[in-house]
Amino acid sequence: MEAVIELSYALDTFYFLMSGALVMWMAAGFAMLEAGLVRAKNTTEILTKNIALYAIASIMYMLMGYNIMYPAEAVSGYWPGMSFLLGADHATADVLASEGDTYYSNMSDFFFQVVFVATAMSIVSGAVAERMKLWTFLVFSVVMTGFIYPLQGYWKWGGGFLDADFGFQDFAGSGVVHLCGASAALAGVWLLGARKGKYGPNGEINAIPGANLPLATLGTFILWLGWFGFNGGSQLALTSVENANAVALVFVNTNAAAAAGVVSALITARLLFGKADLTMALNGALAGLVAITAEPLAQTPGMASVVGAIGGVLVVFSIIALDRVKIDDPVGAISVHGVVGIWGLLAVLLSTNDSATLTGQLVGIATIFVWTFVASAIVWAILKAVMGIRVTEEEEYAGVDLVECGLEAYPEFASNR
Amino acid sequence: MEAVIELSYALDTFYFLMSGALVMWMAAGFAMLEAGLVRAKNTTEILTKNIALYAIASIMYMLMGYNIMYPAEAVSGYWPGMSFLLGADHATADVLASEGDTYYSNMSDFFFQVVFVATAMSIVSGAVAERMKLWTFLVFSVVMTGFIYPLQGYWKWGGGFLDADFGFQDFAGSGVVHLCGASAALAGVWLLGARKGKYGPNGEINAIPGANLPLATLGTFILWLGWFGFNGGSQLALTSVENANAVALVFVNTNAAAAAGVVSALITARLLFGKADLTMALNGALAGLVAITAEPLAQTPGMASVVGAIGGVLVVFSIIALDRVKIDDPVGAISVHGVVGIWGLLAVLLSTNDSATLTGQLVGIATIFVWTFVASAIVWAILKAVMGIRVTEEEEYAGVDLVECGLEAYPEFASNR
Amino acid sequence: MEAVIELSYALDTFYFLMSGALVMWMAAGFAMLEAGLVRAKNTTEILTKNIALYAIASIMYMLMGYNIMYPAEAVSGYWPGMSFLLGADHATADVLASEGDTYYSNMSDFFFQVVFVATAMSIVSGAVAERMKLWTFLVFSVVMTGFIYPLQGYWKWGGGFLDADFGFQDFAGSGVVHLCGASAALAGVWLLGARKGKYGPNGEINAIPGANLPLATLGTFILWLGWFGFNGGSQLALTSVENANAVALVFVNTNAAAAAGVVSALITARLLFGKADLTMALNGALAGLVAITAEPLAQTPGMASVVGAIGGVLVVFSIIALDRVKIDDPVGAISVHGVVGIWGLLAVLLSTNDSATLTGQLVGIATIFVWTFVASAIVWAILKAVMGIRVTEEEEYAGVDLVECGLEAYPEFASNR
Repeated sequence: MEAVIELSYALDTFYFLMSGALVMWMAAGFAMLEAGLVRAKNTTEILTKNIALYAIASIMYMLMGYNIMYPAEAVSGYWPGMSFLLGADHATADVLASEGDTYYSNMSDFFFQVVFVATAMSIVSGAVAERMKLWTFLVFSVVMTGFIYPLQGYWKWGGGFLDADFGFQDFAGSGVVHLCGASAALAGVWLLGARKGKYGPNGEINAIPGANLPLATLGTFILWLGWFGFNGGSQLALTSVENANAVALVFVNTNAAAAAGVVSALITARLLFGKADLTMALNGALAGLVAITAEPLAQTPGMASVVGAIGGVLVVFSIIALDRVKIDDPVGAISVHGVVGIWGLLAVLLSTNDSATLTGQLVGIATIFVWTFVASAIVWAILKAVMGIRVTEEEEYAGVDLVECGLEAYPEFASNR
Repeated sequence: MEAVIELSYALDTFYFLMSGALVMWMAAGFAMLEAGLVRAKNTTEILTKNIALYAIASIMYMLMGYNIMYPAEAVSGYWPGMSFLLGADHATADVLASEGDTYYSNMSDFFFQVVFVATAMSIVSGAVAERMKLWTFLVFSVVMTGFIYPLQGYWKWGGGFLDADFGFQDFAGSGVVHLCGASAALAGVWLLGARKGKYGPNGEINAIPGANLPLATLGTFILWLGWFGFNGGSQLALTSVENANAVALVFVNTNAAAAAGVVSALITARLLFGKADLTMALNGALAGLVAITAEPLAQTPGMASVVGAIGGVLVVFSIIALDRVKIDDPVGAISVHGVVGIWGLLAVLLSTNDSATLTGQLVGIATIFVWTFVASAIVWAILKAVMGIRVTEEEEYAGVDLVECGLEAYPEFASNR
Repeated sequence: MEAVIELSYALDTFYFLMSGALVMWMAAGFAMLEAGLVRAKNTTEILTKNIALYAIASIMYMLMGYNIMYPAEAVSGYWPGMSFLLGADHATADVLASEGDTYYSNMSDFFFQVVFVATAMSIVSGAVAERMKLWTFLVFSVVMTGFIYPLQGYWKWGGGFLDADFGFQDFAGSGVVHLCGASAALAGVWLLGARKGKYGPNGEINAIPGANLPLATLGTFILWLGWFGFNGGSQLALTSVENANAVALVFVNTNAAAAAGVVSALITARLLFGKADLTMALNGALAGLVAITAEPLAQTPGMASVVGAIGGVLVVFSIIALDRVKIDDPVGAISVHGVVGIWGLLAVLLSTNDSATLTGQLVGIATIFVWTFVASAIVWAILKAVMGIRVTEEEEYAGVDLVECGLEAYPEFASNR
């Protein structure tokens, strides 16, 4: 029997590690998606931001974020207390004595969690692309990944007040990860303003096409693949018939929602614009994924498809609407992760899940949004005063790659138009 | 003992899910391969087709394809009957009562199977690239993934007449997946005709180089990686010494065949053209993979290398031969998946496998080819009459990206030659 | 109990196979990294080299390398003897009789090992890029993967004289894989000379920017992901609480070291050049990974971050220093894998590991370097005499793609400057 407990511990740990590796891979997905959707002259800088934010998230979450989000002993449901670095893992004797209650490695849990915070931060980089100063962004990412994200994560997943008893359900993070990232992004975009030339003096909205759509498509496929780890790993246990079935259903529902998002966004864009708009199809896939993330388990694949399809329609209209109110988000991140994240949290109520309530979901949404938006806005505002957050008009025109990175992304190709 | 049954169920389910995730990743591989091998002006459209076909395959296979291919109760060996959507998963009590006969989640099986149908469909998009109408292609993919593929899949893998007793062996789908996809592609290419300018009036064959060879190479590496799931998962069980050894041997043989395909195609192309032809090396890798797919288990790695090497030689000659008879396949899909798929099915007879017979393999090949080719040709012909299948000559010259998608893939780079 | 032994065998085998698949994926990472860092006119050729070297490594290691590195019966600690091809896998009865001593499939072990030799060889292709003849390189790769790498691998991991008793510790191959690859690369670069135009007549060092930084970034992310398999799989066992904890800690430390390498390289480059240098950030990530590879287990994540951070600083100074002495390495491979590989082997002494000694580490480093450098130099020198190793000056100016491969990588984009 001891051998079985050890085996089970090993399998659940391995399941966490493989899930985490898939989510880590999403960092590459965001990097490719964003690099494909900006202009050539701003590509090196967005790549630098993406690899650097992943690195910063990994360090800050190890230093303090993980302890804030999952405190050993919390002060209250609102404040977890402070502690630093990672502790030791479970001793074999303790695992055996727990008779299955302690069923996976602490370190595998940290690995799975740390890649989530990087995901939240990746959402921000896309929305503020093509005009935010690189080092300002990186300083913000220190605060976001070390404190802003972990605190609201604690409220929901770490034992804080937004727990299941509160009536707030968020299986894998439509709110905790995606809405959180989008809220920080919105605050940044708000203080930053639109890219030069995006909105004309007479209300025109100018399309600024991305330089490399194969990269953006690759990024979307990477995110789709990574999402199997994101949602699938969030069952947090594999080794029983029930858990294995749950993980499998989460995989199927995640795939179904993304597929439905592609189809619905493609058709919506066809009806609106008369074309098969690839970028909308990509955003449709991501919208389907974000929408199902709050509840990928307590529904059938058919229902998951409906949730994803609505996400795919929503994202098209949201992107159009944000442009109307001059919120300039080059990659559509606020629509995909914020607007559709909210839809996902409300769609939880369509499932047969019993603990979520409309009030719970609404308060959860409001809490995550208000906290992240206000805290982020304060940090962005301080950074604006201290370092500046926007490159100069000349630098923006020339492209941020040369001024920030000193390197062109495609020195032999781009006509720099 | 119950704990061991549950653990085993969890591990086999996880093995299916990880294998399925690798095969899902092949969708990105086909997208990158095809996007790299077409001209810049047709890139957005091929990307749109690839993500949309994956989405449609996921939906149609959930709605009806899976039930056709793996019916709960079949009408006959030729006709499985019709039913819709996915049922429930196994109850824990049933799993325990089965004492190991029911050893993995239904949903994990669906996930593994659904990514196979997307693979078959991805084969088609490459062959008809650069001139087929996008929406016509997508309507075809509805029929292909919901009906044409599943029916022949049923004949071999779902309990139909082409089973092991018939003497037809196809471990992971050299026939059911690859030859099937290639047959549908051939029917499409036949009705569609060659790209303008491919074949000159005096019998010249003009090379039309792909716009982005790093993407094509990336796509090939993705497919190679994904194939470990494709073949490795097709053992359908992991948890015994025998099964674990089998899965490991399948990994090794799959890798060996692909490696041998690269080397043999590279040398063949060197002898024929005097150069180290990268696209032939990539096709050689894929040919090795397709060739070994029908029987990656019942042979040694040395023999697997021989099977793959012959695939690599064959694909080079097949690509040349198809060009001679003016079958215009921009990515070589019919050669890689069709001609080499047939080779793979015949190579089964080289192994020590006992159930396959020459007659069985030949009838299996003929059945898959004739069914898929005829059914596809009928559907393509109807679509040609109703919607049209080919863009106009002017649209083809300008590139399908703008007319179909309204977006250039590389707005800042391409000289649109 | 027999069922538990079989389950455990299956899980450990699966862990090897998944780890191996991740390492195989590193081949794509090197291909993308190198294709992004060379000029457009040399891209097809570097892609061809990368897929061909992976294929050759797979074949040569199967034919003889694996037997040299892990001999059934060795002649001495210096010479393993010769044998060929792969044997059979474990019989179920033997596994059960071993009571857990035989705990994974032989074939899964081969699969995990074969992708390591490809990694070592990939290191070479980058350093000699843009001027070495393609076929000469491929012939070298036959000798390197079939003999040079396996022999020194045997000394450390296969039972040779550099074992733990000797005081030499190299967990996953900072020395056996990375320093080995870098030593072969250095010998090649030494005989080959610098690219035309790299070093001016008056001591100028001219930057030759890579053509496609998104590809290079993608390659780095792929390598980062693959490294979880590289280091994580090198624990060689998963199924106990202790092993599972070890694998999880290896994942966390690997990630922490890479993250710290990014940040430290970014800051170092900022201080030196005043810019956020993306290529240095990428090399910083790889440096962190190489540095932690020799001992990713016997230290805390905090300490792993320090080891990685020092790697990130080192790589920047090493790249500058090698340019000063006119060792022209287009992708920085010798710095990343050689200089930082040595740092990783010395950093083992910072951990609480008890078997490593300073003498042991120094002798290990010297042995791997001297053997690989001398053996490689001899092979390169013979090839230089027989086939030539460098393209002509005209060919180099025109780009090696057309002369070697007959295909441009980006026929519609590149201005061929």
